[in-house]
Amino acid sequence: MSYNTFGRVFRFTTWGESHGPALGAVVDGCPPGLVLSESDIQPFLDKRRPGTSRFTTQRREPDAVRILSGVFEGRTTGTPISLMIENTDQRSKDYSEVAKAYRPGHADYAYDAKYGFRDYRGGGRSSARETAARVAAGAVARAVIPEVTITAWVESIGGDRIDPAKFDANEIGNNPFFCPDREAARRWEKLVDAARKAGSSLGAVVTCEATGVPAGWGAPLYAKLDSELAAACMSINAVKGVEIGDGFGAAALSGEANADPMRPGTDGPEFLANHAGGIAGGISTGQPVRLRVAFKPTSSILIPVETVTREGEASEIATKGRHDPCVGIRGVPVVEAMVALVLADQKLLHRAQCG
Amino acid sequence: MSYNTFGRVFRFTTWGESHGPALGAVVDGCPPGLVLSESDIQPFLDKRRPGTSRFTTQRREPDAVRILSGVFEGRTTGTPISLMIENTDQRSKDYSEVAKAYRPGHADYAYDAKYGFRDYRGGGRSSARETAARVAAGAVARAVIPEVTITAWVESIGGDRIDPAKFDANEIGNNPFFCPDREAARRWEKLVDAARKAGSSLGAVVTCEATGVPAGWGAPLYAKLDSELAAACMSINAVKGVEIGDGFGAAALSGEANADPMRPGTDGPEFLANHAGGIAGGISTGQPVRLRVAFKPTSSILIPVETVTREGEASEIATKGRHDPCVGIRGVPVVEAMVALVLADQKLLHRAQCG
Amino acid sequence: MSYNTFGRVFRFTTWGESHGPALGAVVDGCPPGLVLSESDIQPFLDKRRPGTSRFTTQRREPDAVRILSGVFEGRTTGTPISLMIENTDQRSKDYSEVAKAYRPGHADYAYDAKYGFRDYRGGGRSSARETAARVAAGAVARAVIPEVTITAWVESIGGDRIDPAKFDANEIGNNPFFCPDREAARRWEKLVDAARKAGSSLGAVVTCEATGVPAGWGAPLYAKLDSELAAACMSINAVKGVEIGDGFGAAALSGEANADPMRPGTDGPEFLANHAGGIAGGISTGQPVRLRVAFKPTSSILIPVETVTREGEASEIATKGRHDPCVGIRGVPVVEAMVALVLADQKLLHRAQCG
Amino acid sequence: MSYNTFGRVFRFTTWGESHGPALGAVVDGCPPGLVLSESDIQPFLDKRRPGTSRFTTQRREPDAVRILSGVFEGRTTGTPISLMIENTDQRSKDYSEVAKAYRPGHADYAYDAKYGFRDYRGGGRSSARETAARVAAGAVARAVIPEVTITAWVESIGGDRIDPAKFDANEIGNNPFFCPDREAARRWEKLVDAARKAGSSLGAVVTCEATGVPAGWGAPLYAKLDSELAAACMSINAVKGVEIGDGFGAAALSGEANADPMRPGTDGPEFLANHAGGIAGGISTGQPVRLRVAFKPTSSILIPVETVTREGEASEIATKGRHDPCVGIRGVPVVEAMVALVLADQKLLHRAQCG
Repeated sequence: MSYNTFGRVFRFTTWGESHGPALGAVVDGCPPGLVLSESDIQPFLDKRRPGTSRFTTQRREPDAVRILSGVFEGRTTGTPISLMIENTDQRSKDYSEVAKAYRPGHADYAYDAKYGFRDYRGGGRSSARETAARVAAGAVARAVIPEVTITAWVESIGGDRIDPAKFDANEIGNNPFFCPDREAARRWEKLVDAARKAGSSLGAVVTCEATGVPAGWGAPLYAKLDSELAAACMSINAVKGVEIGDGFGAAALSGEANADPMRPGTDGPEFLANHAGGIAGGISTGQPVRLRVAFKPTSSILIPVETVTREGEASEIATKGRHDPCVGIRGVPVVEAMVALVLADQKLLHRAQCG
Repeated sequence: MSYNTFGRVFRFTTWGESHGPALGAVVDGCPPGLVLSESDIQPFLDKRRPGTSRFTTQRREPDAVRILSGVFEGRTTGTPISLMIENTDQRSKDYSEVAKAYRPGHADYAYDAKYGFRDYRGGGRSSARETAARVAAGAVARAVIPEVTITAWVESIGGDRIDPAKFDANEIGNNPFFCPDREAARRWEKLVDAARKAGSSLGAVVTCEATGVPAGWGAPLYAKLDSELAAACMSINAVKGVEIGDGFGAAALSGEANADPMRPGTDGPEFLANHAGGIAGGISTGQPVRLRVAFKPTSSILIPVETVTREGEASEIATKGRHDPCVGIRGVPVVEAMVALVLADQKLLHRAQCG
Repeated sequence: MSYNTFGRVFRFTTWGESHGPALGAVVDGCPPGLVLSESDIQPFLDKRRPGTSRFTTQRREPDAVRILSGVFEGRTTGTPISLMIENTDQRSKDYSEVAKAYRPGHADYAYDAKYGFRDYRGGGRSSARETAARVAAGAVARAVIPEVTITAWVESIGGDRIDPAKFDANEIGNNPFFCPDREAARRWEKLVDAARKAGSSLGAVVTCEATGVPAGWGAPLYAKLDSELAAACMSINAVKGVEIGDGFGAAALSGEANADPMRPGTDGPEFLANHAGGIAGGISTGQPVRLRVAFKPTSSILIPVETVTREGEASEIATKGRHDPCVGIRGVPVVEAMVALVLADQKLLHRAQCG
Repeated sequence: MSYNTFGRVFRFTTWGESHGPALGAVVDGCPPGLVLSESDIQPFLDKRRPGTSRFTTQRREPDAVRILSGVFEGRTTGTPISLMIENTDQRSKDYSEVAKAYRPGHADYAYDAKYGFRDYRGGGRSSARETAARVAAGAVARAVIPEVTITAWVESIGGDRIDPAKFDANEIGNNPFFCPDREAARRWEKLVDAARKAGSSLGAVVTCEATGVPAGWGAPLYAKLDSELAAACMSINAVKGVEIGDGFGAAALSGEANADPMRPGTDGPEFLANHAGGIAGGISTGQPVRLRVAFKPTSSILIPVETVTREGEASEIATKGRHDPCVGIRGVPVVEAMVALVLADQKLLHRAQCG
């Protein structure tokens, strides 16, 4: 059975394939009375949209969202919000090679093994195009949590990291990499260009921070805030790792080095550190929620790789045509959306139990 | 609202606090006819049991499990399996300090912020004692997936890693650290002893490998196998990071370096590498499923840390009495249990949809 | 929180309002490889379609369904199936009266009380138009359970019952009432005409029978087959009662009169009666599954009824324009759809646990 | 797969068999800070307890409940509440006949068909003993909805109905039938005695009313309040029908006769009738929520009935020993519990979305 719904009381369901007529999301459980229109959603889609620079895939999609239900006279009604995005640039091309042979690292073989069958055009359901639906749903989630500010950025590409001392949040929107370090952005331009020209691809790490999350969100034990965030981010295409706070770094620390001491503050305790990434016991502490997400290099490369055909014969395959040289870049708005979706859900869950 | 149930069709619900009379799990959706008795579960609890060496907490609990329902004449009936473990060593002590002041890094403050109220005795619900219930449930899960072998070990403690060249699976059970490298185990003895004597604690990384998972398990997009594993592991106390396959390492690679080429094999394709950790597009590929889990150093240390009281006054707190110097060690059987629980669930999910 | 998803492993989510641009359903968890196209769905929508006789609402909707995802080359892929039906006859009219005053018996007041706000055009989300989405989803469900035949009919209108001795399944499709008794159909013509002309409305009882359901479907205790059927049918607009087998009639019987004795049969036991409606202990027995569903007379009548305005002032209201004089008639394909959806879900659930 | 959990945000899971060592419920999602102890639960169990009069089964169970978790210093903590009831009178007897042949009307054949296997001692999981766990959970639910008063009674036994004109709520607790009509109670004494002596059994109808439910609870469309109530009640052993408000009676009415006109009232609208049973569009209207539940006569009768053995041979079977001559009587506290559980869940759901 396939599970295309995420969330517990604020839930969304996505549908659609890379080369179908459209894709979309149905958002259920949204509180009534929130101001919402297409113009609240479109800017987030525009951030994720392909074809905006030479560092992302050249597929041209306007990604124009339509609200088909759940909004009346500019406000949410409390009924399901159906969001639809039409596909317009499903370039007709020859998929016979992909239909026949499995692209290593892609979902091709696994889908066939599971379903005995797959829509091979552009990755079908496993295509990163599905993330457009998440981003649209995430924009609705943001309306549910106006107290929270969510910001993500690329922290490293192909192992080349930003200099934390040069972090400038204002830079994030100034370059095609969502990079907060102007110098790193300049280096990455060359790095990604080189990869693109070589027909190669690069991995990336995305960091996300949510400020304004009050203490108390998160439902232990199996809907812990960190557990939900991990599930949400790990469900994004190409993601292979998630850390909360210091993550794997904490595993190398001693207890005293990893402590987040508290002092009396003006509005609840003031924390002297945030190794925990704003979450303790699965519940938010009021500190910024911080997480890191690892994106693998996309497996769509022009360099031929050894593979097998559906019939089990030896072959070689190389991706032809459009692809993202560093899929982590466009992962930034997707991570933000998933974090927004988890937080909106947890806000409502908290309200359910703790009033 | 609190969510203490995990799983989709093979589900378990845990209950119980560190210092209550008992704790337990109810396993629902288990296939009928499986051979199961207490003696199939107890060995896994014994691996997790406290007080077995000086490197774990000195709380003495037999952790004897009772099956209260769902098994008849030695076989599962398909009805809920209720598992109960009585607490016997809830040492009576003075909790007034913990009741008054928040232990930094613990769930104390977050629980109070959420519920306005908490069972402060030994961490209450947020205590790692709850993981006994998971381990018991995990033993039932193993009965559902006899085709799969799950093995976890400690890969590093306090940043000191095993030497992969010296990996010997047979060593894992020969030392109190679940360490597959005999020399590392000897080093860790000193390392953990030193931390224990200093009243400090150490983080650890646990690696887990599941072999025998057939291709096809995993339900994209929001019940992807890797997403479920991430949620499962991140819900374990003290876990701050999860990686599938190469994880964050993959983010530093190029697409060609990260590829898992395929060749015709005797029984389906043979993979020439396993950067993906056995999962592509959220679905198992038939390769070993590999993941890494980061445990922070426990916040229960004898070294005083600055904190605040419930009334918001400045204070200091140090853990008194029994604690685990490296909580990641006993995390090994817990990670194994969570992996078993996810795989059993995904096996049944796959059977539901793909028959 | 609003729950617009039904089902456990075979699930559907509906969206849309009476006067929005479209409505639809997303079906998730459908097995792969099933033959499916719009032409498999359309006939069921045509049965439910308004405006086909003078005994149903005169709103004219083609109710043409589009499959937007989840089907490739004529077969289901195992990914979510998005179904969309555009609204075309949302007649522009003056809703100011409905916006101001509550129609008694309608959801108007309750929606306002819940959400503080509602889409008052044609009932918004609470309109029976939503059932088109269920019928479309139900057609997909039928593809999952080819072994089952589901037939529903109207058993009584306004208290006037068919004569069981004159039951003829072939008649059901021969009259606008889904009536299996030719004489009753003739009587109902007059009865419903009279109600329509008087601006009144009539209740009805729908009976549904599913044959071919094997023994063993149903998941006790809280996903019992009868419990799921009751939830499914009670969620249909205007439904106020559900019976399984003899239902309330059984409450007046003695144990021996209500017994369903068994004899050895050619293929499992042969039952000598079916008071139980094919379900025992929440599990199908292999006998036909039989249920009855009570539809109230629609509250949309031309006869003025005392009411209050949103501002709490006394008023009177009468429905203007198009309405169904007997909403139970078009309930027939909806009940069939809900039964199909429950059975498909239970089939897959059974397969998950009992393989 | 078996689903032994009910509820959406306020959830309970039951476990246990008739002849196992114990049975119980885990209640999850309960708000923190509610006063709760065993003495708040026990009175409800005492109402359901067997052996209190000659009109119920003579099995003697104290049904003493223990709270094993989730309560600290007399208040709920927000963590799962584990409730356990030990079985004490699992009279050792010869079950070889039940093991071999199927009792018609019981779950015996269906369980075997589903699971290939069953715990035949006293009905195993399908025994009405499981309802003790529901009643215990229901008592917790009542603590969540102090604004609501839930009262159920037996309205008819074996077709003999109370006289509505003689309804006296104070009588309900004065007789062993939960009968609000003193004269009917006297008649039933003879009726049930006669059935008991004849080794027969009788069906019954239970009516339940919940007052104090505010307008606005219920989550359309698939968690409508009436849909949830129907599912909840239909999951009770021996229940075959559920009606909301006028139920099947409404199906015989005209729209004007079935209308619930409104007038301005002191605190929101005042309704002039309650055909709808307090629910419109799946949402409570503020009127009393009214429902009726049909219990079949128990199939455990001393009169032999034709049946087959597990091996498929013709046989006859009669229940030996203890049984309820009218299982609907003890259904009264069970229906109340299920209604409480649904209302508590819907209250929290409503708070989540509309907070």
